[in-house]
Amino acid sequence: MNTTQLIGIVAGILTATSMLPQLVKIIKHKKADDVSMFMLIVLLSGLATWIVYGILREDWPIIVTNCFSFIINVLMVIFRIKYSHKN
Amino acid sequence: MNTTQLIGIVAGILTATSMLPQLVKIIKHKKADDVSMFMLIVLLSGLATWIVYGILREDWPIIVTNCFSFIINVLMVIFRIKYSHKN
Repeated sequence: MNTTQLIGIVAGILTATSMLPQLVKIIKHKKADDVSMFMLIVLLSGLATWIVYGILREDWPIIVTNCFSFIINVLMVIFRIKYSHKN
Repeated sequence: MNTTQLIGIVAGILTATSMLPQLVKIIKHKKADDVSMFMLIVLLSGLATWIVYGILREDWPIIVTNCFSFIINVLMVIFRIKYSHKN
């Protein structure tokens, strides 16, 4: 692994980590009304497009990070739907 | 501009757009307690690292998108501090 890849992985870990507190908060409070569904869908489309971009550029940090963020956001969509139906 | 760059720019527009509703909400409601300062700092560090990564790989979509996201998040930090002092 070269320095550039290492920097990419550090960047990916930091941005992906910053998404976790929101997910933890939703699960803990069983409340996700503050999270806009429209925003989640725009974000998911963006992350999917980044994955395609990463594949085209053979850029592993981009692919791995965005796959991870994509999974976190799919979970947010699931909890958003689950907890909206409760109320 | 080639297809890969175009895909990168579309990806960037989508992920950057997904951040705007949160900022609009904070400004509108003058309330930012729901936004974790720790999370914002981790995110800012991540975005700064992505900019360095983009420069090293001469990857324009990465540089431009992360600069834009960085500015949005700096604004969030400013409003977070401003509205916390009010209460």
